[in-house]
Amino acid sequence: MKKPLILVTNDDGITAKGIKALVEVAQKIGDVVVVAPDSPQSGMGHAITIHDPLRLKKVEMFGVESYECSGTPVDCVKLGKYVVLKDRPIDLCVSGINHGSNVAINILYSGTMSAAMEASLNGINSIGFSLLDFRADADFESYKPYIEKLMRSVLEKGLTGGQLLNVNIPNIPGEEIKGMKVCRQSESRWVEEFKENEDPMGQKYYWITGSFVSNDLTEDADVLALENGYISIVPSMHDLTDYDSLEKSKWMESIMNSE
Amino acid sequence: MKKPLILVTNDDGITAKGIKALVEVAQKIGDVVVVAPDSPQSGMGHAITIHDPLRLKKVEMFGVESYECSGTPVDCVKLGKYVVLKDRPIDLCVSGINHGSNVAINILYSGTMSAAMEASLNGINSIGFSLLDFRADADFESYKPYIEKLMRSVLEKGLTGGQLLNVNIPNIPGEEIKGMKVCRQSESRWVEEFKENEDPMGQKYYWITGSFVSNDLTEDADVLALENGYISIVPSMHDLTDYDSLEKSKWMESIMNSE
Repeated sequence: MKKPLILVTNDDGITAKGIKALVEVAQKIGDVVVVAPDSPQSGMGHAITIHDPLRLKKVEMFGVESYECSGTPVDCVKLGKYVVLKDRPIDLCVSGINHGSNVAINILYSGTMSAAMEASLNGINSIGFSLLDFRADADFESYKPYIEKLMRSVLEKGLTGGQLLNVNIPNIPGEEIKGMKVCRQSESRWVEEFKENEDPMGQKYYWITGSFVSNDLTEDADVLALENGYISIVPSMHDLTDYDSLEKSKWMESIMNSE
Repeated sequence: MKKPLILVTNDDGITAKGIKALVEVAQKIGDVVVVAPDSPQSGMGHAITIHDPLRLKKVEMFGVESYECSGTPVDCVKLGKYVVLKDRPIDLCVSGINHGSNVAINILYSGTMSAAMEASLNGINSIGFSLLDFRADADFESYKPYIEKLMRSVLEKGLTGGQLLNVNIPNIPGEEIKGMKVCRQSESRWVEEFKENEDPMGQKYYWITGSFVSNDLTEDADVLALENGYISIVPSMHDLTDYDSLEKSKWMESIMNSE
């Protein structure tokens, strides 16, 4: 049987431990091509590079065809699909393993998830993986069996709808994980603070910091599943229409004729 | 009566014609504070700046309190809320007027829409405006009455649900516009091409280009409303959960125990 073609990317950069672990799993399953950023791209969301040229450099890594790219995670997927693979059918795109959480609204800020989203926009089944441990030397080893099972299952059964999964792994040893839960993206927000400081020229600058707040502990919330020791899986999509508000918003159509 | 506080931002940069038009409308309605990027930030999506410090510089523009910011559109909203306005309640955030379309999936790539989305994540009623004319010297004048009416109505009636509107204006003279239509984000995709070239050192580079494809001409699609001469309004939200796939995805929960 023909091996599946798997495109691997991330947002922490091609030298991060997380992508190495993900490539190692993918290699057991299929033919792997890596296109990943040449520098950290956390928090890049769905950014694309339109004002600058993009570089793509073949690198000897992982024992598979690998490229580092000067752009964002979404750029990596676009270059992977159109330039590297020249539209050869990609069976699965996996992104990560992210060093740190992408639960709840973090999907919007995450380069890891936006890369997976970009692939799904092109009809490719895609999974973004994140571990709730932001350290550069996080240990991904014990989570590999879960990741392998999920990748094999998605390749076999396919995904419905948005063709995109947001998978977060709790920061406990793999052996202690209780299972996987299919969840809803929980409600949450960031309460921001900015560190104010002065540069050597006496000019003020600000550095973003902040804390993640989620009070959404309803039964099917991803945040709760993780707290309870489960891997959370949120089937996600690119349609941001607020369907519940569509009918309620019809009053706007009449305001043009009112005085 | 106390005047509403309106935060204005964009992604084309503080010197773009589109934001000037939007500020002029907002000034007729409320107290206006502008925090906008100091350089073009199109295609930045929901990116935030976490690896670099941010600069914020007061500028004499528009006759209102205005700042240019070194960061992304989302950074502008965060700095506006937390640093400039120090959490003073913002009644409305408007972003744009974008030079170019943000219909369909372009909401994901758009810095204009991500800025509005960021405000809505903080519970602020937000509207992103885009004109289907990408030229730097596009003429926004004839669309001002529509924008003013919509802003006044949202301030008066509020928004439901996601608290975010994606508003696109067709590229026809304002007098010819037939009205506003509340729409769904239509299905669409980008077919990418990369221009390959060599720099003076003989190194290859790629520049993204591509064409927008939408075959979704169902009745309530935003693309169709615009083609028919209407302003499209898509009530949008930050919850990317694919609810239709939640139940169908439950099989994933059992794969952990299978061999």
